[in-house]
Amino acid sequence: MLNQGGIVRSTSQRNEKPWTREEFREQLIDVGRNSYHDKHPFHVAMHEGVLSKKQIKGWVANRYYYQKCVPIKDAIIMSKLPSREFRREWIQRIIDHDGNQEEQGGIEAWVKLGEAVGLSREEILREDHVVPAVRFSVDAYVTFAREKPWIDAVASSLTELFSPILISERIKILERLYPWIDSSGLGYFRNRLTQAPRDTDFALKVVLDYCQTREEQQRAVNALQFKCDVLWAQLDAIEKAYPN
Amino acid sequence: MLNQGGIVRSTSQRNEKPWTREEFREQLIDVGRNSYHDKHPFHVAMHEGVLSKKQIKGWVANRYYYQKCVPIKDAIIMSKLPSREFRREWIQRIIDHDGNQEEQGGIEAWVKLGEAVGLSREEILREDHVVPAVRFSVDAYVTFAREKPWIDAVASSLTELFSPILISERIKILERLYPWIDSSGLGYFRNRLTQAPRDTDFALKVVLDYCQTREEQQRAVNALQFKCDVLWAQLDAIEKAYPN
Repeated sequence: MLNQGGIVRSTSQRNEKPWTREEFREQLIDVGRNSYHDKHPFHVAMHEGVLSKKQIKGWVANRYYYQKCVPIKDAIIMSKLPSREFRREWIQRIIDHDGNQEEQGGIEAWVKLGEAVGLSREEILREDHVVPAVRFSVDAYVTFAREKPWIDAVASSLTELFSPILISERIKILERLYPWIDSSGLGYFRNRLTQAPRDTDFALKVVLDYCQTREEQQRAVNALQFKCDVLWAQLDAIEKAYPN
Repeated sequence: MLNQGGIVRSTSQRNEKPWTREEFREQLIDVGRNSYHDKHPFHVAMHEGVLSKKQIKGWVANRYYYQKCVPIKDAIIMSKLPSREFRREWIQRIIDHDGNQEEQGGIEAWVKLGEAVGLSREEILREDHVVPAVRFSVDAYVTFAREKPWIDAVASSLTELFSPILISERIKILERLYPWIDSSGLGYFRNRLTQAPRDTDFALKVVLDYCQTREEQQRAVNALQFKCDVLWAQLDAIEKAYPN
């Protein structure tokens, strides 16, 4: 069975008993256990310290396109949220990425990571190295936010449940196994360690509260699976473009 | 000729010489001179002090729907803006309306105005008094932001060029001619006196910079005309619903 954003699902779900809150949470966590991109061969190789400088640069340059599109996706979600109270939570994500007068923001921090691995600011911003399949997968994520109900888009953001473990490990790995990267470039990851848990606290609560029927719960699980696919497809494309 | 958001316009404009920056600004100001809702009979009557309590209440209750939709419209615009720098400017509009931990925000201030004119918070939030044509015109504005190019949506926001004069006059009028309104309820208008000029400084600069051909300039003028129509149609509907 296809498992993409709730488009295709068993018709019998309509009558199935809802999962308890704890079971539902487990189903969501299970998606990450099985499909989060920490298990992708490219990330595994990164964490084993065997990626070349070219591969690291390719990854950072391509992943910039994802960073760039995240606040666009979040503004779309914000325009669809059902209340001012929800928007007041969600807006922090956009500020975190775009920055404000006090903070440079995550996109700029990612550009600094790019410089730390040897890319020029210009080649990052011009997206010189972004390969088509990365663009397609990121665009699919933005389109998903635009075209699906807001709760699906919120559920799809829950990959951040899994990111702090990956990121805290990655900071140590990059510092130890890729000492040629200027560690001042790792600020993006350090910030995400506090931002991601705060974001998911809210998003997870909303999803657990809002999805009451089994069908709604399954849609949320499917949305999260879709997002894992988006992240995975990016690494597939990067791995293909930078085989060594 | 219909003059709605650039949909219908003379085909000859394609070859016409662009207006100078100053001429273009004058064309935009002219839209306000001719069509801004300060000239609507309902506003004229308000400023003459002849509206009944029922009419004032009807106006505030209906206009709440507009207030409520403004940050939705702004989140849509933000999702379409071409750069992080633009988003960093635009996001302040959403914060101004929705509020944050420090500020209650414009929507809450509008609810307080509603309470000051004798409406209950509940009947405002439930939109008990919102008449269909007000809903339709506000929804048309949100749809415009969603479906038109971002620059049209930015241009449509330029009615705020005209609002500070109207609002500063209104504060005095309401205090003097409608003394039954608790003046603590006028905070919304007081805040807009500083917010609107800051917002239009940015939006006007973007429109003047970005619209270089005569066709682009005319689109911006049409978008502003459309927004004036949106505001005017709301007052038409309110006037009809509350004749005395």
